Amino acid sequence: MAAGAARLTHPESGAAFPPPPLDARPIDRDAWIAAFRTVREETERRAAPLSPEDQQIQSMEDASPTKWHRAHTTWFFEQFLLGDHQPGYRLFDERLHYLFNSYYVQAGPRQPRFMRGMITRPTAQETAAYRAHVDRAVSVWLREAADEALARALPILEIGLYHEQQHQELMLTDILHAFAQNPLDPVYDARWSLPAAQASAGQSALKRGITQIGYDGHGFAFDNESPRHDVLMLEARIDRGLVTNRDWLAFMEDGGYARPELWLNDGWVALQREGWEAPGYWRREADGWSTMSLAGRKPVDPAAPAAHVSYYEADAYARWAGRDLPTEAEWEVAARDGLIDDAFGLVWQWTRSAYGPYPGYRPVPGALGEYNGKFMSNQYVLRGSSVATAQGHARVGYRNFFYPHQRWQFTGLRLADAGS
Amino acid sequence: MAAGAARLTHPESGAAFPPPPLDARPIDRDAWIAAFRTVREETERRAAPLSPEDQQIQSMEDASPTKWHRAHTTWFFEQFLLGDHQPGYRLFDERLHYLFNSYYVQAGPRQPRFMRGMITRPTAQETAAYRAHVDRAVSVWLREAADEALARALPILEIGLYHEQQHQELMLTDILHAFAQNPLDPVYDARWSLPAAQASAGQSALKRGITQIGYDGHGFAFDNESPRHDVLMLEARIDRGLVTNRDWLAFMEDGGYARPELWLNDGWVALQREGWEAPGYWRREADGWSTMSLAGRKPVDPAAPAAHVSYYEADAYARWAGRDLPTEAEWEVAARDGLIDDAFGLVWQWTRSAYGPYPGYRPVPGALGEYNGKFMSNQYVLRGSSVATAQGHARVGYRNFFYPHQRWQFTGLRLADAGS
Amino acid sequence: MAAGAARLTHPESGAAFPPPPLDARPIDRDAWIAAFRTVREETERRAAPLSPEDQQIQSMEDASPTKWHRAHTTWFFEQFLLGDHQPGYRLFDERLHYLFNSYYVQAGPRQPRFMRGMITRPTAQETAAYRAHVDRAVSVWLREAADEALARALPILEIGLYHEQQHQELMLTDILHAFAQNPLDPVYDARWSLPAAQASAGQSALKRGITQIGYDGHGFAFDNESPRHDVLMLEARIDRGLVTNRDWLAFMEDGGYARPELWLNDGWVALQREGWEAPGYWRREADGWSTMSLAGRKPVDPAAPAAHVSYYEADAYARWAGRDLPTEAEWEVAARDGLIDDAFGLVWQWTRSAYGPYPGYRPVPGALGEYNGKFMSNQYVLRGSSVATAQGHARVGYRNFFYPHQRWQFTGLRLADAGS
Amino acid sequence: MAAGAARLTHPESGAAFPPPPLDARPIDRDAWIAAFRTVREETERRAAPLSPEDQQIQSMEDASPTKWHRAHTTWFFEQFLLGDHQPGYRLFDERLHYLFNSYYVQAGPRQPRFMRGMITRPTAQETAAYRAHVDRAVSVWLREAADEALARALPILEIGLYHEQQHQELMLTDILHAFAQNPLDPVYDARWSLPAAQASAGQSALKRGITQIGYDGHGFAFDNESPRHDVLMLEARIDRGLVTNRDWLAFMEDGGYARPELWLNDGWVALQREGWEAPGYWRREADGWSTMSLAGRKPVDPAAPAAHVSYYEADAYARWAGRDLPTEAEWEVAARDGLIDDAFGLVWQWTRSAYGPYPGYRPVPGALGEYNGKFMSNQYVLRGSSVATAQGHARVGYRNFFYPHQRWQFTGLRLADAGS
Repeated sequence: MAAGAARLTHPESGAAFPPPPLDARPIDRDAWIAAFRTVREETERRAAPLSPEDQQIQSMEDASPTKWHRAHTTWFFEQFLLGDHQPGYRLFDERLHYLFNSYYVQAGPRQPRFMRGMITRPTAQETAAYRAHVDRAVSVWLREAADEALARALPILEIGLYHEQQHQELMLTDILHAFAQNPLDPVYDARWSLPAAQASAGQSALKRGITQIGYDGHGFAFDNESPRHDVLMLEARIDRGLVTNRDWLAFMEDGGYARPELWLNDGWVALQREGWEAPGYWRREADGWSTMSLAGRKPVDPAAPAAHVSYYEADAYARWAGRDLPTEAEWEVAARDGLIDDAFGLVWQWTRSAYGPYPGYRPVPGALGEYNGKFMSNQYVLRGSSVATAQGHARVGYRNFFYPHQRWQFTGLRLADAGS
Repeated sequence: MAAGAARLTHPESGAAFPPPPLDARPIDRDAWIAAFRTVREETERRAAPLSPEDQQIQSMEDASPTKWHRAHTTWFFEQFLLGDHQPGYRLFDERLHYLFNSYYVQAGPRQPRFMRGMITRPTAQETAAYRAHVDRAVSVWLREAADEALARALPILEIGLYHEQQHQELMLTDILHAFAQNPLDPVYDARWSLPAAQASAGQSALKRGITQIGYDGHGFAFDNESPRHDVLMLEARIDRGLVTNRDWLAFMEDGGYARPELWLNDGWVALQREGWEAPGYWRREADGWSTMSLAGRKPVDPAAPAAHVSYYEADAYARWAGRDLPTEAEWEVAARDGLIDDAFGLVWQWTRSAYGPYPGYRPVPGALGEYNGKFMSNQYVLRGSSVATAQGHARVGYRNFFYPHQRWQFTGLRLADAGS
Repeated sequence: MAAGAARLTHPESGAAFPPPPLDARPIDRDAWIAAFRTVREETERRAAPLSPEDQQIQSMEDASPTKWHRAHTTWFFEQFLLGDHQPGYRLFDERLHYLFNSYYVQAGPRQPRFMRGMITRPTAQETAAYRAHVDRAVSVWLREAADEALARALPILEIGLYHEQQHQELMLTDILHAFAQNPLDPVYDARWSLPAAQASAGQSALKRGITQIGYDGHGFAFDNESPRHDVLMLEARIDRGLVTNRDWLAFMEDGGYARPELWLNDGWVALQREGWEAPGYWRREADGWSTMSLAGRKPVDPAAPAAHVSYYEADAYARWAGRDLPTEAEWEVAARDGLIDDAFGLVWQWTRSAYGPYPGYRPVPGALGEYNGKFMSNQYVLRGSSVATAQGHARVGYRNFFYPHQRWQFTGLRLADAGS
Repeated sequence: MAAGAARLTHPESGAAFPPPPLDARPIDRDAWIAAFRTVREETERRAAPLSPEDQQIQSMEDASPTKWHRAHTTWFFEQFLLGDHQPGYRLFDERLHYLFNSYYVQAGPRQPRFMRGMITRPTAQETAAYRAHVDRAVSVWLREAADEALARALPILEIGLYHEQQHQELMLTDILHAFAQNPLDPVYDARWSLPAAQASAGQSALKRGITQIGYDGHGFAFDNESPRHDVLMLEARIDRGLVTNRDWLAFMEDGGYARPELWLNDGWVALQREGWEAPGYWRREADGWSTMSLAGRKPVDPAAPAAHVSYYEADAYARWAGRDLPTEAEWEVAARDGLIDDAFGLVWQWTRSAYGPYPGYRPVPGALGEYNGKFMSNQYVLRGSSVATAQGHARVGYRNFFYPHQRWQFTGLRLADAGS
């Protein structure tokens, strides 16, 4: 699979991820330990530039504090791996269970989401101790557990790693949002930048016919990528490249944010409520537009892909251009067959597919069944990956999803001409 | 097309609807006049049981006053037919333009939706005069316009008739909602009842293969039913009949409204916010459940189809049953091929298809392009028709749509087992 | 007492009000019947220009439908007079109890205030029947009850009459607000106007010393006017006349609505939230300002008293002028001693006194104790009366009260220089 | 003046406060420096037990982060003292001006109040540097400024000290509120407790007559305590002691929170909206009630004064007891004449006086005129001081004020029988 080269600020720590396939025998305990350590360290590496104050705040209900991400990912292993699979495991602090459960109703009551920023204790330092406690326990277990027990629990460990990587992405998008509330324009990493798009120009043709999308059984996938199923592709065309800031400025200059006929009704309501007149974080300066970035406030780079646009904006842009957003099936087939560039590592790409279950989808039983399935309404699918996505996390079949008004993620778009 | 037999309270006035095909030549002016009169009279017939007070109120932002429906449908003809196509037409009162435009941004500013109930003047009686003025003008024009001019404008007349029929349905659902706010349980029509379901038991099989859905070019269709396009049907099964109140009571008794694992996340939020514990209008009585109906408050009839359920409830019910809602394509094919019963005339049926554009859909230019296209986000498609749907309005290809939390329409469900 | 000559649109029906003193013996039954009839007829006279639709709507939570006022005042007699004092009285319709109780918690549950406009049945016509039923019952009782029983209940009858007069004022202010929501600017009475102020210019001096304010035991008074008590008057000055629109325009031209330093903090918040830039109902026209009135939209009359201003605006105006609003004691003493003009019949006058209990005040026991006492927080006292006040209702000691942001009443101001 | 002995957790640093009278000559520069240092050190002493995370959060709009209090009090000296009075003073960082202005409209735009918790930079440590910078500049200026310049600016320095002491109280009440949101019940100071009341039982009589209240010209006072003016005292009685938790439990057991007839209308609305069933921070435990305190969660002490009650609750309690709250004049005279105990150092005491201007009050010109005057609506006066009040801050004439629904301060009550 031609997964995207992650282009993070710092080099990540290496090749230990992804871990071996679940069915590989004998179990390569060292490889699993290395994968676990790789992921856990990356979280701490992302938190390292942040002060205890930075790690504390929740700048909106959609976002979470850095410290919460660090603790919640730890809770995930404690709750679902150690608690369920390691007899005699002793909780670090039983009171943390309530605080760091995110949304698993079946795992018990939890701190209301919008109150995550109110929890000053445990501190960032105490959170580090919590992480170390769980890291030790998992490592010991990986070395000492019986083969059979290990085999039963490895799927939980594996989902925990991918889960933590998802939160690694949110750590960056959430702190960017938090910093954007501060008139001082704080800097997360002065060397950071969103790379310019690399695509060749032009379009690719998608051929008519029945093909399959969804999880093919190799490697890891979340449950929402299953079952693999037939889809009918109509003839269509898809752009090799992403929409850039240069393109977006043309849309703005043509009155894109002032012409209701270009917008979905709900989108126009959102535009008026939020006062949108440009992508998220953009600000009009004396000499052009600036945008807030992880390196602080910077001039908008015309060659970089448009980012921090909502689905509503992406849809309005496509209507203005007389074009369409691709469906998620079109995107997946195009990416699989090498028909598009910049699929990974820059910005997630909105599709025009509402997020719903694949035909015959059933969530897994128990609390982990809440992972994806219960969010299958009112959201849209995004494909690809972004500059903030962890190394080894991106996949052709990956289904990301957000509400159509949300734009604090690294979200952009590529255009298509709908099949017929 | 096996269109649904509408089962309205009173017999409607007859066979004058639908009008002749648009391309029929010579133009049968009498038939068009009869169709126009039929539709316009049905609106007044539905308003007749209501006092001026009843016609005044707007009981929530989603609903509109009866009087507003009567005036807005009239404005539609005045704005798009007489104003644009009848030279020298004199507006009844130019100030009504602002009041009775609904959501056509390109037709100018308008009374905010949530303020529709604030307009006491024109009164119900003055609204009747407005209707008579426009009726006369349209009738004269239908008799006297030159053939060519008539031919150009007939598509507008036709859409105006279907538009008014849509509002006829809303008149009933909106007044039911308004009456449900009144502890006196007012009666719209004492003879009214939601008929019991007529379906045979059992399921039908849907065969795998490529087929087409959407508007086939015969008769009338809204723009959102085009273009007709290929779809891949997977093997699936669909129930012949609707879910009934008896079924729904079993869901309730099994804790359906108290088990979050059965619900979409947004649905559970809606349930808690609204305090749902039964379908809309249901109330727990000493000896069972009652529901508010157009005949006043009545005991729940176990044999009647479940009605006034939101998409969230329909989805939770399906999950509880280990089943699926059908896609809109599955529904359309099943209805077309006679594989289901009670498709029309009882309750609209939620599908699991998010409301979006058919591949290649483009709205028509101008204000009428706002009719359907701009609502294509965050809503779900319903198929069939309801007991409140006007005679001649239902079609196999008809795409109705509402937000997943809404339940003041006559909305129910049938189950399927998703294709694979 | 130099009570204000009410200047209503139509002449009221005469001299039958107020009724005889409660302790007059023998009880003059005819006089009580005449007073009752006078008040009840005035309510109907005020409703007469209004269509059933006009009488239906509630244009904001603070206002109530005309029909509701007609029914609620009737319920008051039914609940507190007939129900409690006339053995064997048969309720017109027991279901109305819930609908037309306003805020008497001890009289049982009631229709939520903001839902008063949702009640289309009983209709305006049925409400007239309700009124007639109660009118008959009260009249018969006034003729036939034993002297002793009558004497016990006359205080309730008397408060019911004054209560109904309060609602007569609200009927006019509420319909004015409702009509102001309608772009058609409906007319309640084409001959209506707010009279120009009649005051002589200049100020009166208030002398230092101890005096008494509050109910002196003669005639009727609400419980909040008791107990009569000593107050210390400081030396002060008070204007003979009211602030006029001409004055107010000078305030506006001097940036009155744009200078936060002139405003209370809560007032500035209200100004920004509501978008105030002029008194209520004012609108900028090509050639000056218009205001909505009971005679429809009219040019602002510079000589008329400023009206529809909130306490916050009155306070800001006084600060701008380097002056003060009077206290309620200053106002009462000045009115009693003839030191001011236009005290009655034009606009209520904001005082700088927060509405609270007089020293030693205790509400009467039972539901009628909720009449005034429970509102003694967060409101300000207004004194005098307005053009909408019923004939015979105004008194020197009358304590009206509203929240400081409210301005749909006929509320204005006169200035003073605070005592010291 | 028998000012209250502050009973803070730790001993404060001594006798250097208050500073010398403003008109003392020669100016005792050392005494002023000592007073300045005393106040500034007390702020840091109160912040010392708190982690950077604790200092970061704003747990509701009414509260502010510890760090913000530390920075805002510093800004106050920088803005009003150094900026206006020390030529050539160089701002620590000009961007902080926007962040740490609280509500001084005339001092320019500022960070919205509800967003104070979003500012992670400057960090707590950088805030310490800001404080040190300003401390040095003020100390140097106090040593080196010319006598005349110093004399002109000392009133600003003095108000700045009292201003900072006000924020010292808020630092404790705000962190208590923040900690109360955390299920872990964090501890600010394990040795802290609210002392038991010390009062003798019984009542004192207040004699009828004219007396004066307000600032008598000696020592410091805020502008809202002027002008001193005559008031008429009616005969009344006032309790020597405070209402205790034991008293409050009796109120609760008698249905105090369930009987609307005991409550102001706005108070009952607040009770229902907030779900009040006990004072703030109380929680029902298996064996009685606990309350959140600065020492963590503790059993309710029956002998301690009732605290964290709103005005609405205090008012309902008084009504239940058939008693009154005192007016602020009654309180001031009683405290001045030694007629009450526990006036200071336990809990602020609600009076029944709405917060308004004393007769003839005019705020000082300029931004400092916004200090008190613009809040004179919708709030109630509290008198005395609390366990959290800084040493040397309490005064007989002190007018504290809060909205009637607020209860996160150390607010309690004493009862009276209103004068007549």
